[in-house]
Amino acid sequence: MSGLLERTAARIAPADEEARAAARDLLDAKTKPRGSLGRLEELACAIAAIRGSAEPGGLRAAVVVAAADHGVAAEGVSAYPQEVTAQMLANFAAGGSAVCVLARRFAVELRVVDVGVGTPTGNIAAGPAMSRAEATRRVEQGVALANELAESGVDSLALGEMGIANTTSAAALVAALLEVAPASVVGRGTGLDEEGVAHKVRVVERALRANRFDPADPIGVLAALGGFEIAFLAGLALGGAANRQVVVLDGFITAAAALVAARLAPACVDALIASHLSPEPGHRAVLDALALEPVLDLGLRLGEGSGAALVLPLLGASLAILSDMATFEAAGVTDAGR
Amino acid sequence: MSGLLERTAARIAPADEEARAAARDLLDAKTKPRGSLGRLEELACAIAAIRGSAEPGGLRAAVVVAAADHGVAAEGVSAYPQEVTAQMLANFAAGGSAVCVLARRFAVELRVVDVGVGTPTGNIAAGPAMSRAEATRRVEQGVALANELAESGVDSLALGEMGIANTTSAAALVAALLEVAPASVVGRGTGLDEEGVAHKVRVVERALRANRFDPADPIGVLAALGGFEIAFLAGLALGGAANRQVVVLDGFITAAAALVAARLAPACVDALIASHLSPEPGHRAVLDALALEPVLDLGLRLGEGSGAALVLPLLGASLAILSDMATFEAAGVTDAGR
Repeated sequence: MSGLLERTAARIAPADEEARAAARDLLDAKTKPRGSLGRLEELACAIAAIRGSAEPGGLRAAVVVAAADHGVAAEGVSAYPQEVTAQMLANFAAGGSAVCVLARRFAVELRVVDVGVGTPTGNIAAGPAMSRAEATRRVEQGVALANELAESGVDSLALGEMGIANTTSAAALVAALLEVAPASVVGRGTGLDEEGVAHKVRVVERALRANRFDPADPIGVLAALGGFEIAFLAGLALGGAANRQVVVLDGFITAAAALVAARLAPACVDALIASHLSPEPGHRAVLDALALEPVLDLGLRLGEGSGAALVLPLLGASLAILSDMATFEAAGVTDAGR
Repeated sequence: MSGLLERTAARIAPADEEARAAARDLLDAKTKPRGSLGRLEELACAIAAIRGSAEPGGLRAAVVVAAADHGVAAEGVSAYPQEVTAQMLANFAAGGSAVCVLARRFAVELRVVDVGVGTPTGNIAAGPAMSRAEATRRVEQGVALANELAESGVDSLALGEMGIANTTSAAALVAALLEVAPASVVGRGTGLDEEGVAHKVRVVERALRANRFDPADPIGVLAALGGFEIAFLAGLALGGAANRQVVVLDGFITAAAALVAARLAPACVDALIASHLSPEPGHRAVLDALALEPVLDLGLRLGEGSGAALVLPLLGASLAILSDMATFEAAGVTDAGR
């Protein structure tokens, strides 16, 4: 690891269990049967633990969409041609994509970052995606953006991505890091048929054979099999965790990035919230490995950070419950649950 | 059935399948793989079908909380004493309850309606909750509020309730209408232990023996086993469906009310959206009977309309996607999915 990455990993502290317990005590005094808001209460406590405050108030979130191209697109692993990455970048700029609509709807800042659109990685089916130095540089770019956003008062990062063929890269990365068979983590992506999925499995198998890596060396695996946006998002997760920002994952690709981050600095997992579960089979595998339980299960498989954006109103609601509900005592309501 | 109820049932039309198909076509032209926003797309189409418009724009929602007391509370079926219903009514007025916080957070109108707080129904374990005439009157009160809200421009009704012991009444109602064993639909409510649940099962069994009713006569079952707020909410659902308002259910009790409504006018089911699945075992049974799939599964068991309120931002987001996303053609993005 080089300087910034090393320093960032060293800054990551585990969740603040005192803040979590204090948030739980606050919730237990509110006028509702204890625990009756279920997962919403757990989310409030988790955010308290991340932020290091029993009552974080609100979250100022930003959705960050990292976009890049992948050399492996040449293998025909996506239903869409590579040019769509650049076209979608223009669509983001014009405000027409799904995540643009959601960010506007929820009044959340949206940052789209071009980390390699039009300058694809190497084709992982034939060799490494990038050099170790390049992988580290991309991770550190992500850290730098997390830091910049923290400075500007953003305390939650919703991760998104765009990159034709990036579920192939993510599947290879996850198969390598979890040491599982490609077939168990390869899915339909944006809409492959069965034959397309079978072909994609073979491409991932080729990628694992074409590259030399040590599963215990996350930067090495990332350089061999990753993508520029995946590296960037791993850095964003690390930087977010170091800054005590709430890091909201989207689907399979952001989860793969988080897995890389977790291998670089295990405590960063405490800062993560899994917004939803996608139908990609590898997504559940990664969330299980990270011991994360998704909040939503809506069959979302778009990416762009759309699922991460969708969960933001629920996170805000959980904090409003924590801050704004009356207590049994203040409201004069009989508390049978004590 | 008397006048208003009969006229309302006659006004209920099935979903507008043309509007649903038109919304589907609109979504399929947007810059995303077809169907990739999963359930969110289905919700947009469902709302289009309810509203009778391919592009409904937005929804102006109101959360309606119906509160009432239940004579069966005397049987010790709740962890909380009956006085809590009235105390919570004061808490609603002061803005301190969970649903108050959520309604403020999401900028949604909240209506709390006292339909019998302090004047409980008869104890269903010993006899009928109310007369048939009373049951019809309460249903019609719900219809009238749906109509009043429709007049004022509210096009979505999020149903909520408050009433100590009302899961007992709902369980009896559901057991009678679905003709299933009480033990299969009785749960912990606001926090009973195992012994408490066993006692509650026995109370529901007594209620089914103490009353004479025909499972095919929904008003009769409602009068025998229901509650004032359940009758009112059944009317709200019927009125909402007649007015093409989107009716958002909360947990077990609102689902029981919807079951009564569906027995009175089966087409009203088309207007219903199940916001979430609660841990009450009877909730899944009713949703299955109504062929409704819940959107959220967060372990919510508070009631008050809290789950219905929580899903509103997702419904709004689904309509924003339908209205505001760019098409492949307008954005110049290659559409591989055709």
